[in-house]
Amino acid sequence: MTEFITKVRVYIEDTDFGGVVYHANYLRWMERARTELLRAAGFEQQTLMDDDLLFVIRGLDIRYRASAQLDDKIRVKTTISEVTFATMVFSQQINLELEDGSEGALLCKANVQVASISVSSRKVMAIPKSITGAVSIYRS
Amino acid sequence: MTEFITKVRVYIEDTDFGGVVYHANYLRWMERARTELLRAAGFEQQTLMDDDLLFVIRGLDIRYRASAQLDDKIRVKTTISEVTFATMVFSQQINLELEDGSEGALLCKANVQVASISVSSRKVMAIPKSITGAVSIYRS
Amino acid sequence: MTEFITKVRVYIEDTDFGGVVYHANYLRWMERARTELLRAAGFEQQTLMDDDLLFVIRGLDIRYRASAQLDDKIRVKTTISEVTFATMVFSQQINLELEDGSEGALLCKANVQVASISVSSRKVMAIPKSITGAVSIYRS
Amino acid sequence: MTEFITKVRVYIEDTDFGGVVYHANYLRWMERARTELLRAAGFEQQTLMDDDLLFVIRGLDIRYRASAQLDDKIRVKTTISEVTFATMVFSQQINLELEDGSEGALLCKANVQVASISVSSRKVMAIPKSITGAVSIYRS
Repeated sequence: MTEFITKVRVYIEDTDFGGVVYHANYLRWMERARTELLRAAGFEQQTLMDDDLLFVIRGLDIRYRASAQLDDKIRVKTTISEVTFATMVFSQQINLELEDGSEGALLCKANVQVASISVSSRKVMAIPKSITGAVSIYRS
Repeated sequence: MTEFITKVRVYIEDTDFGGVVYHANYLRWMERARTELLRAAGFEQQTLMDDDLLFVIRGLDIRYRASAQLDDKIRVKTTISEVTFATMVFSQQINLELEDGSEGALLCKANVQVASISVSSRKVMAIPKSITGAVSIYRS
Repeated sequence: MTEFITKVRVYIEDTDFGGVVYHANYLRWMERARTELLRAAGFEQQTLMDDDLLFVIRGLDIRYRASAQLDDKIRVKTTISEVTFATMVFSQQINLELEDGSEGALLCKANVQVASISVSSRKVMAIPKSITGAVSIYRS
Repeated sequence: MTEFITKVRVYIEDTDFGGVVYHANYLRWMERARTELLRAAGFEQQTLMDDDLLFVIRGLDIRYRASAQLDDKIRVKTTISEVTFATMVFSQQINLELEDGSEGALLCKANVQVASISVSSRKVMAIPKSITGAVSIYRS
């Protein structure tokens, strides 16, 4: 199984008055990671949208274990745990990255269910085989 | 059981290239609703923080049913489904609000687990009885 | 001259690690205020967009004097200081609102130049007279 | 004169219903660039804050020429055009980056005035010589 890894730096925009990252912003980083996974597999969402395909989020669950703070480097690990006709479930985990480049504390873990819809009809449509095939190396 | 209701208008900042609200922004609205519920019960988070108390999010699950778009009026309904020594679970639902002020389509539902920690030690601490007592009217 | 006034509450999402509102978020509030001014004048941007009209920001300048923090109530005052064939300049000021509802300290002042473009061609187009007429009561 | 260059990818979170980047988000990218410039010079803002130093934005002006859209790669060029006792003015420009890595269309240009304050007193304080010295290579 291959994990898809993306790295993010924590900026001021990500933090809140508690001095740590605002809880909803971890979801933005996970979304960036899914976007990069799709891009690595050869698909850009603007292009897909021009072809009437849009991925929307059906649901997610996330558990927070620790908080990132300003200037931290974090690492998002993404795999795809489930694929159906029109949905994919991404399993994503965010950890700190230490100075030496090794993995630090677990910050949060999430499962994100994404569905494929038609931009024009807003109805569910099949995920093209070309996409499910290309991302299959990230299946967990 | 009393539901705590807050209302929000969808602005450009909330939308994304798909023409609808960016998924993580519903969580911002739910957080505003929890903040207003606490305020209605007599507690402001800046004041609590000055008293060393900070509420942090331990985890959440959310299911999306439909999307809000620019200019929509939406309504967040919040109840508290569970209270323990140091955690509260908020059950929150977002619906459209129709022109006539009645409730429209369900957009999403979430359960959000919040924990009470000490700002100074970052350790879990008991939720003051004054708070659990004051919010108990919103228990579901 | 009539000032258009909107009110906003500061939520956790608006703050940053400095304990005050993140600088770019004041621009979100000003944008909400312009949206509400247009709505009060009878125009919703989603509807305008369906009619091929989109307002885009050409430029702005903003001066910050003081910072809002969590739980503060703030007030955005908006007037229109200039109108041309395809542009409007909004003069906007944000102040704290005190407990008694009176105006508190000045937080920031900005001038925001907005242009009217065609969604389909992305080219500048005239602002409909119906709009410039309706918002003229807010001319400064 | 050395320009400090940072690169950013446009993600869904950055876009709005108009299909392009929300105007205030260019300021987030410029802030990331200033943060990276300071980091490259040896200073991290969390560390500075622990030493009672906080940089706050006094004012800015920005002109928008074109819009970035989802999946675009953009480049932020930053120089420091002015340094005083307690303030620095950053001149920042954002351009598209083309496939071949060369610079594409100009998207926006801004001047951002930053002031150095004491976290504890919230009063203006001198920018340490160590900082002004280290960033002087980026003076324009």
